[in-house]
Amino acid sequence: MNSSTIKPIGYIKNSLPEKFGVPRQSGVIPEFTGTIVLEPEYKNPDALRGLSDFSHIWLIWQFSEVKENAEFSPTVRPPRLGGNERMGVFATRSPFRPNRLGLTVAKIEEINEVDCTITVSGIDMMNGTPIFDIKPYIPYADCIPKATSGFTNNLPPKTLNVSFDESAKTSELTENDILELTAILSHDPRPAYQDDPERIYGMSFKNKNVSFKIKDELLTVVEIK
Amino acid sequence: MNSSTIKPIGYIKNSLPEKFGVPRQSGVIPEFTGTIVLEPEYKNPDALRGLSDFSHIWLIWQFSEVKENAEFSPTVRPPRLGGNERMGVFATRSPFRPNRLGLTVAKIEEINEVDCTITVSGIDMMNGTPIFDIKPYIPYADCIPKATSGFTNNLPPKTLNVSFDESAKTSELTENDILELTAILSHDPRPAYQDDPERIYGMSFKNKNVSFKIKDELLTVVEIK
Repeated sequence: MNSSTIKPIGYIKNSLPEKFGVPRQSGVIPEFTGTIVLEPEYKNPDALRGLSDFSHIWLIWQFSEVKENAEFSPTVRPPRLGGNERMGVFATRSPFRPNRLGLTVAKIEEINEVDCTITVSGIDMMNGTPIFDIKPYIPYADCIPKATSGFTNNLPPKTLNVSFDESAKTSELTENDILELTAILSHDPRPAYQDDPERIYGMSFKNKNVSFKIKDELLTVVEIK
Repeated sequence: MNSSTIKPIGYIKNSLPEKFGVPRQSGVIPEFTGTIVLEPEYKNPDALRGLSDFSHIWLIWQFSEVKENAEFSPTVRPPRLGGNERMGVFATRSPFRPNRLGLTVAKIEEINEVDCTITVSGIDMMNGTPIFDIKPYIPYADCIPKATSGFTNNLPPKTLNVSFDESAKTSELTENDILELTAILSHDPRPAYQDDPERIYGMSFKNKNVSFKIKDELLTVVEIK
């Protein structure tokens, strides 16, 4: 087998330092943003020339927190199926896959040609994720409205209502932060098979720990510290 | 930099043993097919379970004929711009890019669960291309009809009419082969900046060499041997 060594062209910086809370698919949380910071070797405004004419980009990246060289498991349990049913790994977007490669389409929000950074939205990657390629999204090739999908149904997942207890108010997060946090929480970060209304969950967001509980369709943030 | 070693999960088998003639984007030549053959390590029907419910897959692969560790060039000349204008490499799908990764959406034509092969169409890869991942195409995440694209305009390239001279008739290619070959040729495999009606071009197709010339909008196959 001809293995190949690839090296990051850059990394993403965003508000989620851990996997918990990261959207399960790109595009579903437009409010979740991040900034691509190119490595010194690729930090050249010329490399981004023309990119501002595109609205979206592909990112090829790696699920860096999944253990390398884990034994190959041909099946995985997608959260969309309640975590009980096994599907072939190549029929899913699961992180537990050979080469651990991820694929994300992101909306370009801003290109900073001085710093060579690209701010994008709708991502599904955690802070520090290494990026191996950036490509423009080309609708005539990449957008296939007639494509049919299996168990994912073609419907984005249901969302929760989010409320903040008085005890969770903080002046240390900006209005934008709160919008982003609310959007992330509304997509129900719990593992699919958990439904305990008494349980307090903790999620890292920026340098904060966000505690919340979920009852029926309502998520209540009880503490941010 | 945290480099990563990736190894092929399989290879594609198709009719184009050389780069010349390979479509410049996926989807533009639906008649161009190939078969993904999984490596022994991943040759397990379980790994494909559920894939038949999807119409399309993503392939992440490598431009294997591009030299590894070539010096980074921040700009490239896209054929769509006539080969004269330079664009940032991350604003193009050019093969001459860091990590040499390619991204293709292909239509599933047939899944053979005994051999663990997947026959796909609309590809833009040459025979023997190593594949590093297969993922299902999920329309709600991947299809963005409102996406805008820069210099590619959103229009597939113009096609040529193709005719076969008497001298090019051969009984060694099947009807399907001829359909595939015609489709490939109709997309004008010439480098963008060439337009010499006298020039005879040679393209490898299966174990044949196909000679043709192009005048205005007509491509004439003069020999297949």
